[in-house]
Amino acid sequence: MLLIDRNNYHLFTPLLYQVASALLDPGEIARPVRELVRPLRNVEFRQAEITGADLQRRLLLTDHGPIPYDFLVLATGAQTDFFGNESVARNAFGLKGLDEGLALRNRVLSRFEAARWAKTPEERRSLLSFAIVGGGPTGVELAGAYAELIRLVLRKDFRDLDMNEVRVVLLEAADTLLGAFESELRAAAKRSLESKGVEVKLGARVAEINKDVIQLAGGGEIQAGTVIWTAGVRASEVGATLGVEVGKQWRVKVAPTLQVPGHPAAFVIGDLAAATDGETLLPMLIPVAMQEDKQVARTIADMVHNGGASTFRYRDPGIMATIGRNSGVAQLGPVHLSGFLGWGMWLVVHLVNVVSFRSRILVLINWAWDYLLYDRPVRLIVAAREDRRT
Amino acid sequence: MLLIDRNNYHLFTPLLYQVASALLDPGEIARPVRELVRPLRNVEFRQAEITGADLQRRLLLTDHGPIPYDFLVLATGAQTDFFGNESVARNAFGLKGLDEGLALRNRVLSRFEAARWAKTPEERRSLLSFAIVGGGPTGVELAGAYAELIRLVLRKDFRDLDMNEVRVVLLEAADTLLGAFESELRAAAKRSLESKGVEVKLGARVAEINKDVIQLAGGGEIQAGTVIWTAGVRASEVGATLGVEVGKQWRVKVAPTLQVPGHPAAFVIGDLAAATDGETLLPMLIPVAMQEDKQVARTIADMVHNGGASTFRYRDPGIMATIGRNSGVAQLGPVHLSGFLGWGMWLVVHLVNVVSFRSRILVLINWAWDYLLYDRPVRLIVAAREDRRT
Repeated sequence: MLLIDRNNYHLFTPLLYQVASALLDPGEIARPVRELVRPLRNVEFRQAEITGADLQRRLLLTDHGPIPYDFLVLATGAQTDFFGNESVARNAFGLKGLDEGLALRNRVLSRFEAARWAKTPEERRSLLSFAIVGGGPTGVELAGAYAELIRLVLRKDFRDLDMNEVRVVLLEAADTLLGAFESELRAAAKRSLESKGVEVKLGARVAEINKDVIQLAGGGEIQAGTVIWTAGVRASEVGATLGVEVGKQWRVKVAPTLQVPGHPAAFVIGDLAAATDGETLLPMLIPVAMQEDKQVARTIADMVHNGGASTFRYRDPGIMATIGRNSGVAQLGPVHLSGFLGWGMWLVVHLVNVVSFRSRILVLINWAWDYLLYDRPVRLIVAAREDRRT
Repeated sequence: MLLIDRNNYHLFTPLLYQVASALLDPGEIARPVRELVRPLRNVEFRQAEITGADLQRRLLLTDHGPIPYDFLVLATGAQTDFFGNESVARNAFGLKGLDEGLALRNRVLSRFEAARWAKTPEERRSLLSFAIVGGGPTGVELAGAYAELIRLVLRKDFRDLDMNEVRVVLLEAADTLLGAFESELRAAAKRSLESKGVEVKLGARVAEINKDVIQLAGGGEIQAGTVIWTAGVRASEVGATLGVEVGKQWRVKVAPTLQVPGHPAAFVIGDLAAATDGETLLPMLIPVAMQEDKQVARTIADMVHNGGASTFRYRDPGIMATIGRNSGVAQLGPVHLSGFLGWGMWLVVHLVNVVSFRSRILVLINWAWDYLLYDRPVRLIVAAREDRRT
C-alpha cells in the first residue's frame, strides 16, 4: 500500500491558528508521516505532489511521474479561495499550511518590532492594524488568539507602545459570525470577541485589498496593514483534473459509496469530496473526513473479497469553536454550550486529539527520549514562506 | 539603556547543530530578547541591523538610522567565512543562524525523501552523500549528529533504503580534528566518529565545490550532494566599518580594557573582538564573551562614577565537544575526559546552560502555561532560509 503526500508530515490543522499566534511550535501540531506509518508493515510512504489522475488507465499522476493503482483514494483536501481577486491573492495572507502559519507569526511579530521605529502615529497605526476576513471558525479563533496575544503578551513586551493604537478587525460578509451555529451561540461568540477588543464588522464584503487599506464592496474602507484571508476555501486542483463532475467549491461529486461515478476503483474523501448524506451536502470538516476514510477502508476490503461498496452515513458529532481564554462555543446536537463551558469542551476535545501527537518537551526530556528510544521528534520539512509583502 | 539586535531572539548557538539534525526545535534553543530583558526596567530593546559605527561622533549606525550613544558595547559576533571562494559560498551550507539550521534540517530530510524516487544508484548515492568541511567542534558535533540521525532514526523511517549507500564525510585541512584539544582527545574523537560511520578525511583541503563533487586542493575529489561548511569563521562586517585596526579573522584589536584604542567610550567584546590575555589571542568562544561582558559592565559602571577602566583577565573554564551518544571529549585544565565521561560532562554543562532557556513543553503544558502565566513561549521571528541549491 502506497501513501503519498506533498509534505513529509501530517498536520493537525485545528491548531494551526495557534502557530500563527505564537502559542505553539510546528513540532507540536505536526508529526512525520513516516513515524505514523512505521507500525504498518504493508504501507510505504512517498513524498510527492499529486498533479492529477487518469481514472480510465488507473494512473495517479505525480511530479515524480505516473503511478498505477488497483484502488485509489484521493484526499488532497482544500486550499484558500481568493475568488479570483488578484488584489486579495497578492496582499492577503492565507492560513492553510504550516509555512503560512509561520509566515503569519513572523509577520505579526515583525510589525510590532517595526512599530517601535515608526516615525509618525499614522505609520504606527498602519503597522499595528490587523484585519481578518471571514467570520467562520478559523477567522473567529484567529481573531480571538491575536487579541489575546496582543493584550496579554505583547503588551508586556512593548511597554512603550500604546496598545490603543493596535487594531484587530474581523470582517464578515454575512450578517452573522459562525453561520453554522445556532443564533445564541453566534451572539455569544460576537460578544466574547468584542470583550477581548476585536472589532467585529458584519455585512462587510471585501472588494479590494491594497497595501494598507481594505476597500469594501458597499463603499467605505478599513485600514489594515496586515490582512488574513479566511473567507473562502475550495477543493484542491486535483479534482478538476479527473474529468468528472465537480460541484460547489470545486468538490468532486461522489456516489453515496464515496466512489467516483463510473470509476468504482477510485474513491474521493475529505474536503476534496462533495459527499452527501441523503440530500444535504456534507461540510468540509475533519469528522466527515475521518468517518469517510474508515468507510472507504471497509469498502475496499470488501471489494478485494469480491464484496460490494456500501453507502456512507455521517454521524454528526457536533461543531465547536474557541474564542480564547475561558470562551468558546460548542453545539453538540441539542446541547449548546458557550463561555467557559464551551471553552472547556473545546479544550478537552482538542487535547484528546492533539495528545495523540508527540509534542516538543524540554530539551532534557528530548535528550532522554532520543537516548532511550533512539528516536528524534523533529523531522518536519517545513520552511516559513517569505512574507508576501516585503 | 538600549539593546539592539538583528534578531528578536537570543540563540543558544552550542545546540544549533541539534536543530540542523532534527533533534531540537528552534523554540528550544532560542528565547525572545524582550522576554529576557523584561525584568530590567531600564533596558529597551530595538530590532535593527547594525551597519557600522562613527566612533568620532559617537553614533551607532543602523538600518533604521544613526543612534547617538554615551557608551557603546559592540558584540555583533561572527559569521561563516568562505575565504572568498565563490563555488563554496554558492554550493555549501553555513551553520551560524537559526534559519540556516532549519534550512539544513529541511535539506537533509528532503534528500532522503528524494532518494526514494531516484532512478539510478548513482543518483541515489549523490542524494545521500553528505560532506561536512571543518574538523572543529561544530564539524565534529554535526558529523556525529548526522551519523546518528541516519543510522538510528532515518533507518527506521526508510526501511527500503540501503543505508550503506549513505555517506557522511568529515573533511579537515589540517592533519588532525579538534586542533585545540590534546592529542589523546583528538584521537578519541576520531575513533568515535569512525565507529559511528563517519568517514574522516584529514589533510583534505577544499579547492572547489560543484553540484555533486568536492574538488580537493591536492587533486582528487569527493562525492557530496550536500556540503556543510564549518571550516571558517570571521568577525561580522561591523568591525571593518569602525576605521580602527582589525586583525586576524577581521576581529577588532582592543585594549586590555576591551576599549577601542583612542575611543574610551567604545567597547568591543565577543567574537568581534581580538582580545588578548597578555600575549595570547583569546579564542572565539562563549566563555570569553561571557566574561568580557561582565568586565565591560563593571568598567562602564566605574567610568560613570569617574573611575577608570581595568584590565580584562580570562579564566579558561576549559573546552569540550560531543560526538554523540555516550561519546564526548572534555579538556578542563589538567583533567582530560573522553568517551562516556566526556559526554556526561558535556551534557551536564550544556544542560545547566540550556535549562535557563524556557523550552517547548507538551501542548497541554503550553496551554497551562499560557493560561496561568499569561505568557506565550513561541515568539521567535525565524524563517527557514530557502535551500540554496533548488
